Amino acid sequence: MNDDIRIGIIGLGCRGMALLGDVMLPQGVRVAAVCDMYEDRRDQAADMVTGAGQADPFRTADYHEILKRDDIDAVVVTAAWEAHIKVACDAMQAGKYVGIEAGGAYSVEDCWKLVAVKEETGSECMLLENCCYGRDELMVMNMVRQGLFGEVVHCQGGYRHDLRAEVAGGRENRHYRFMNYLDRNCENYPTHELGPIANVLGINRGNRMLSLTSTASKAAGLHEYLLREKGEDYDATNMNFQQGDIVTTVIKCAHGETISLTLDTTLPRFYSRGFHVQGTKGMYMEDNRSIFIDGKDNSYDFKWKEQWNNVDRYYDEYDHPIWKEYIKEGIKGQHDGIDWLVFKAFFNAVRAKTSVPIDVYDAAAWMSITPLSEQSISTGSMPVAIPDFTNGAWMRRKQWEP
Amino acid sequence: MNDDIRIGIIGLGCRGMALLGDVMLPQGVRVAAVCDMYEDRRDQAADMVTGAGQADPFRTADYHEILKRDDIDAVVVTAAWEAHIKVACDAMQAGKYVGIEAGGAYSVEDCWKLVAVKEETGSECMLLENCCYGRDELMVMNMVRQGLFGEVVHCQGGYRHDLRAEVAGGRENRHYRFMNYLDRNCENYPTHELGPIANVLGINRGNRMLSLTSTASKAAGLHEYLLREKGEDYDATNMNFQQGDIVTTVIKCAHGETISLTLDTTLPRFYSRGFHVQGTKGMYMEDNRSIFIDGKDNSYDFKWKEQWNNVDRYYDEYDHPIWKEYIKEGIKGQHDGIDWLVFKAFFNAVRAKTSVPIDVYDAAAWMSITPLSEQSISTGSMPVAIPDFTNGAWMRRKQWEP
Repeated sequence: MNDDIRIGIIGLGCRGMALLGDVMLPQGVRVAAVCDMYEDRRDQAADMVTGAGQADPFRTADYHEILKRDDIDAVVVTAAWEAHIKVACDAMQAGKYVGIEAGGAYSVEDCWKLVAVKEETGSECMLLENCCYGRDELMVMNMVRQGLFGEVVHCQGGYRHDLRAEVAGGRENRHYRFMNYLDRNCENYPTHELGPIANVLGINRGNRMLSLTSTASKAAGLHEYLLREKGEDYDATNMNFQQGDIVTTVIKCAHGETISLTLDTTLPRFYSRGFHVQGTKGMYMEDNRSIFIDGKDNSYDFKWKEQWNNVDRYYDEYDHPIWKEYIKEGIKGQHDGIDWLVFKAFFNAVRAKTSVPIDVYDAAAWMSITPLSEQSISTGSMPVAIPDFTNGAWMRRKQWEP
Repeated sequence: MNDDIRIGIIGLGCRGMALLGDVMLPQGVRVAAVCDMYEDRRDQAADMVTGAGQADPFRTADYHEILKRDDIDAVVVTAAWEAHIKVACDAMQAGKYVGIEAGGAYSVEDCWKLVAVKEETGSECMLLENCCYGRDELMVMNMVRQGLFGEVVHCQGGYRHDLRAEVAGGRENRHYRFMNYLDRNCENYPTHELGPIANVLGINRGNRMLSLTSTASKAAGLHEYLLREKGEDYDATNMNFQQGDIVTTVIKCAHGETISLTLDTTLPRFYSRGFHVQGTKGMYMEDNRSIFIDGKDNSYDFKWKEQWNNVDRYYDEYDHPIWKEYIKEGIKGQHDGIDWLVFKAFFNAVRAKTSVPIDVYDAAAWMSITPLSEQSISTGSMPVAIPDFTNGAWMRRKQWEP
């Protein structure tokens, strides 16, 4: 079809493969090129593309080869964290639409560069933060906008995901997390929880994050895990991982709200993003899937547990319109459909040549939490100011829509 | 009986009344005197004492009158927060055993004074922190000591209790919280959650708290509540309460553990102390009453919810011995029995003339979080050092026993 958009995938990490493997490309998206430093990954990806009935894609180990091609409309960057901003800036310079996978930045300067290149080139770059498309996250945002929570005062979230196998096996699996956990100590993955919270609080849209403190616990989880799984003679068992098991970051916002983020990826636990919103009239808590509305759903004694799982009762009335529509169509793709929805939003913008919903200002603000947390941890939890990457435009930007 | 101990109750706040009203005095405890600035409270308390079959107690508005009496072995201080340390020091000077109700301090110097007076006089003062006697708190401590959680890395807790009616009605009810919320901004009530966490982490017993940061949200909850309940013309509706609705405090410990505390008392919500313990082998979470043990109870997908409420399955094997005994005897008293247990421990020490289980070093460390959080909040969440009130003895003190 003439309307087809043609994309290149740069860095075939897990999300890049998911994009292909889960047949989640919305209709009219052709994978014209794949790039990875490893040949076997390129070949595997190309096989998936042809297996899905598309033409054999161009393969390269050098992403600049993809950026040079006129037949590529957009690139999706699913490489290691440290490549995201560099590749995104080069791609914007080459006039491509860019989608970058979730991850933190390595310096505040890099975040500023992302903004500067977007402003110089007029190109669009979207942070593909799938959790912004979570059903509960969007329903809560919807309820907040309808006033059910009153004035929102505090939010919490976390990336609370036992990644010990992935991190510890990083060398065998060619996963960049191994090195990051060995060498760094920071809130290394803030956007899964911070994105939806930013949308609830109107960050970069009438509100902004002002400052943070960050505190890391000791690093004990990986050692214990490796000792059990690999024994005491295995080299990594005796390495000093610098990444604290739990990193707690507290953010203060311009309108007086606070946000508490927790990185929690190297201890045994169930998966949770710990999404939690509190206002003067209501509260949402992911960890027992409860909604508390003053004067309505308001069992005060926790032990009654009457309200656990009552979130289900709110979907009919308060599901976000895009989720209502999506459910009607039938949920597709991994991660409960949020990957599908975020890619759909990106490809819609590419096709319509419009601005992307999660833009460089959001990406810069959210990704900057990583180097800022590193600064705070390295200086004994000193408070650190969070830059205004919009240079004042946040007071006028319109509310977020998915 | 000759073995009877005779106590005075100073400041007839809610816990003082509970002590009387719930007939929770262990056998052999006589209330010989009651003190309050309000005559009606003194009379009410005296009526409860005689109603329980004891002799009419001495009544006074001046607690020094109680301290002078030779027939008083111990005093229980359930007055307003700001009187706790002052009265406790005077009582220790007078040679009495002292029990003080939970609450934060107003200055670090006052905490040092509590320690100094104990060391000068040799008298004993116990912080009556009932939550240290909570069933789950003690079971988790028991499990930690048996190694089920591996190396403990991080704990969380909170005082998450909707007190809007109590605070807003403070003038009518002669409750000191009203003034505190009007004038101060701090973690004003840390000990309910911090006490049990300190016991899990061995604070003052091989470990200690080193530093903290504290961040307060805006104060919006009381205004919204008063507007709804009392209308816009009511004077307090238009007062600027300084106490932020949510205060998040992050503490770093000597052995690298982190503790996150949340004060959350002026927004609509269910009651929770948010007790949460994470180690290299296991996790406990109050908010869905789950225990996660690596390789045993380890459903990774939160949505399966299989492990919610599985705490019940652990009581048989891991209940703390004092709870096993207590359940055999039949639970007595308010607050699920924890008031009974904490008073029992105090009166046992008074009767046996032994040291108290929660002593001035614990009280000083835990209560100091309040003024230290106030310092941090007032300086933009700057990190603040937490004093070593034991002057080095924490490295040698024995592990806590209830």
